[in-house]
Amino acid sequence: MDPFDYVRANQSRFLAELLDLLRIPSISTQPEHKPDVERAAAWLRDQLLAAGFPHADILPTAGHPVVYAEWLPAGPHAPTILIYGHYDVQPPDPLDEWRTPPFEPTIVGDDLFARGASDDKGQLYTHLKAIEAFQATAGAPPVNVKCIFEGEEEIGSPNLELFVRQHAELLAADVAVISDADILSKDLPSIVYALRGMAYVEVEVTGPDHDLHSGIYGGAVLNPNNALCAMIARLHDTPGHVAIPGFYDQVRDLDPDERAELARIPFDRAAWLREAGVETDWGEPDYTIVERATARPTLDVNGIWGGYTQPGAKTVLPGRACAKISMRLVPDQEPAQIVQMLRDYLAHIAPPAVTVQVRDLHSGRPAIVGRDSPAMQAARRAYAAVFGQEPVFVRSGGSIPVVATFQQVLGIETILMGFGLPDDRLHSPNEKFHLPNFYKGIETLIHFLRLLSV
Amino acid sequence: MDPFDYVRANQSRFLAELLDLLRIPSISTQPEHKPDVERAAAWLRDQLLAAGFPHADILPTAGHPVVYAEWLPAGPHAPTILIYGHYDVQPPDPLDEWRTPPFEPTIVGDDLFARGASDDKGQLYTHLKAIEAFQATAGAPPVNVKCIFEGEEEIGSPNLELFVRQHAELLAADVAVISDADILSKDLPSIVYALRGMAYVEVEVTGPDHDLHSGIYGGAVLNPNNALCAMIARLHDTPGHVAIPGFYDQVRDLDPDERAELARIPFDRAAWLREAGVETDWGEPDYTIVERATARPTLDVNGIWGGYTQPGAKTVLPGRACAKISMRLVPDQEPAQIVQMLRDYLAHIAPPAVTVQVRDLHSGRPAIVGRDSPAMQAARRAYAAVFGQEPVFVRSGGSIPVVATFQQVLGIETILMGFGLPDDRLHSPNEKFHLPNFYKGIETLIHFLRLLSV
Repeated sequence: MDPFDYVRANQSRFLAELLDLLRIPSISTQPEHKPDVERAAAWLRDQLLAAGFPHADILPTAGHPVVYAEWLPAGPHAPTILIYGHYDVQPPDPLDEWRTPPFEPTIVGDDLFARGASDDKGQLYTHLKAIEAFQATAGAPPVNVKCIFEGEEEIGSPNLELFVRQHAELLAADVAVISDADILSKDLPSIVYALRGMAYVEVEVTGPDHDLHSGIYGGAVLNPNNALCAMIARLHDTPGHVAIPGFYDQVRDLDPDERAELARIPFDRAAWLREAGVETDWGEPDYTIVERATARPTLDVNGIWGGYTQPGAKTVLPGRACAKISMRLVPDQEPAQIVQMLRDYLAHIAPPAVTVQVRDLHSGRPAIVGRDSPAMQAARRAYAAVFGQEPVFVRSGGSIPVVATFQQVLGIETILMGFGLPDDRLHSPNEKFHLPNFYKGIETLIHFLRLLSV
Repeated sequence: MDPFDYVRANQSRFLAELLDLLRIPSISTQPEHKPDVERAAAWLRDQLLAAGFPHADILPTAGHPVVYAEWLPAGPHAPTILIYGHYDVQPPDPLDEWRTPPFEPTIVGDDLFARGASDDKGQLYTHLKAIEAFQATAGAPPVNVKCIFEGEEEIGSPNLELFVRQHAELLAADVAVISDADILSKDLPSIVYALRGMAYVEVEVTGPDHDLHSGIYGGAVLNPNNALCAMIARLHDTPGHVAIPGFYDQVRDLDPDERAELARIPFDRAAWLREAGVETDWGEPDYTIVERATARPTLDVNGIWGGYTQPGAKTVLPGRACAKISMRLVPDQEPAQIVQMLRDYLAHIAPPAVTVQVRDLHSGRPAIVGRDSPAMQAARRAYAAVFGQEPVFVRSGGSIPVVATFQQVLGIETILMGFGLPDDRLHSPNEKFHLPNFYKGIETLIHFLRLLSV
């Protein structure tokens, strides 16, 4: 029997199993749901074993456990893929906005409504069923497979990096694959091949060692609020263009091919403006909105505060002012280098009357996977075979920390093979998963694993 | 008998009376002390009558009452002066830092320690005793006198302007005098002849109609935090110099005479830096620190806030950012005009991707009294006669709202004849009044009233 026939023959059972998983309220952020999170982990382990994995374990972390399974039937010279997913979900609040109960999965037309349906239980489960199809029809998958399913993604994966470091040998693989993303539409598959990185700092400008009265000192003492604003203003020179010397030195240029590919992404400017709630866009005029928001580095003041911020008027000349500043980075910018450049530049432009401190809060490297790499081409061909349409290569403006962790700790690239849709309402009431994508996802992964093996 | 002899002969009684007043804890901001505030008002009314005023009344306001008294013995062609003072005091907290109880006045050497000793009961009381000296030795003061003593100065005089407007005819006078200020030192009297005004606004920059994720929109949507900083940076062009077009148009130049006068003020730069808690001064290089802080207009961001200001990193691109901006004004800048200039300028420099709103929070006109005016010259000569030293003419960088109110509603100038010292610790524990200044103050006012009458 062909694995695709197997999938078609078993659709209703696959769906019934997924409903079981969706009935478990594995809400990682709520302590009272800890038993549910553990139940979901145990359920997954059992299903991995049922799908043919000879080993499947629940491995502890300082928080919720990791479910780990491996099946290495293809021998040491065949590729090994590492499948990542998460079995925890967001809280369902606000409950009264759900049309059907969040943990009683309900099918309406082609859509399956439940918390976690798309994010990420439904997408995660496609992998188990693809493996099962190989097990049932060929005895084993055509490549070596390792699975790492975490229970803390929705609370920021606080223990994942340590786990990956501690189990680096166990997790060794040639490429990772994650299905926790959207495609552009049900008729137009897409593959995210690049993620922006991040350098997030807090800047503190200190002037007088105590708050002063502006009636006594105003005009003769530099106000840290004003000084901070003046420095922030000099972080851009033209719209969207960061003025920090060296900032663009490591930025990989967008070549004409890539820009042509990005231009294939359907883009409705009016709809985009509406969603953003703005009258007009902004940024580097030589780049499209899509390029600016996904393929170009940025600098944003995410927070700023200083002096008196309550109602009414107080004539304080404050002792200090602060800003949280994040820079979205693109390949091959190095967060640590970028922070140092910002620090040097601020020290250079700071007026002598104030001192500036830059504290590193958080950083992550950008990631990019060559569109021509074998795994990426396998993914492309797999989507095309199932969806009847060449997938569009897209970049994401955000970060997925686990991708950076895999890159950094395991030295491997990640292929992001999402099966969600943009209107799946992740984290919101009435989250759903488009059921045709559930089955197409399984078939796409069967193609993908086969293509990887040749 | 000469009024000066009378003062000397009655020093101990004058002091005993002042101690009585200081024992009343007339704390205007604490509702439980309302009876004390009323008691202080009644005590003052009785003392005004005892000093010879034929009329003294307690006039209600929406808050604490005004004590009003008048004595017009000099006829309609003689000048009428309006004496302002306040009989309420600040709370004494923190109590454990007082070396003597705040409402048990204690004399140590030449100093009288008590809450309100200098601010303003001691200074206010000099006026009553100067009038009494005339009454006892000449039957009446040489000019017409009106007194307005309020009980809400320490809570911002919320009802005073309305009171003055409602009683403008009653309060009509040729000049006002206030003793609620410092002189430079016990050996160097000074007269404040100019006060800065104020235009205080709140600026709100609005971008997207909801907070956005900087991973999705960063680089393609203008961040209101960045936009606000860029606009604030353009409010100055060089250090201390405000870039708003027209801002300096109405500024009265400092002529060489005035600058020479201001240069007489003893100024210790090292001590000033220490008090301000800064490493270096800042501002317009063509003006001295004293000039910048008192005689030049300024612009300060008193508060700024936008986006995420809690601990940690959040990658928000906020929908709005705000700043509280105050401008200290000098004669003849008009607050309403200045606010309009700021509004126009911000609208002009605002990028098209954001909108800017400017809300007027608070304003007050600057004030200046000609150093050559008869009342000012009378004050100068009075100080010189008593202190044996020509007073220095100084400007204050702050505002005294009642001065603007008298100017605006009654059309009169105010002579600020202070008898406090810079180390009187107003509003702080161990407030004191230098007793020689109490007696010298009475004598200075006797000279002043006499000089006014000729």
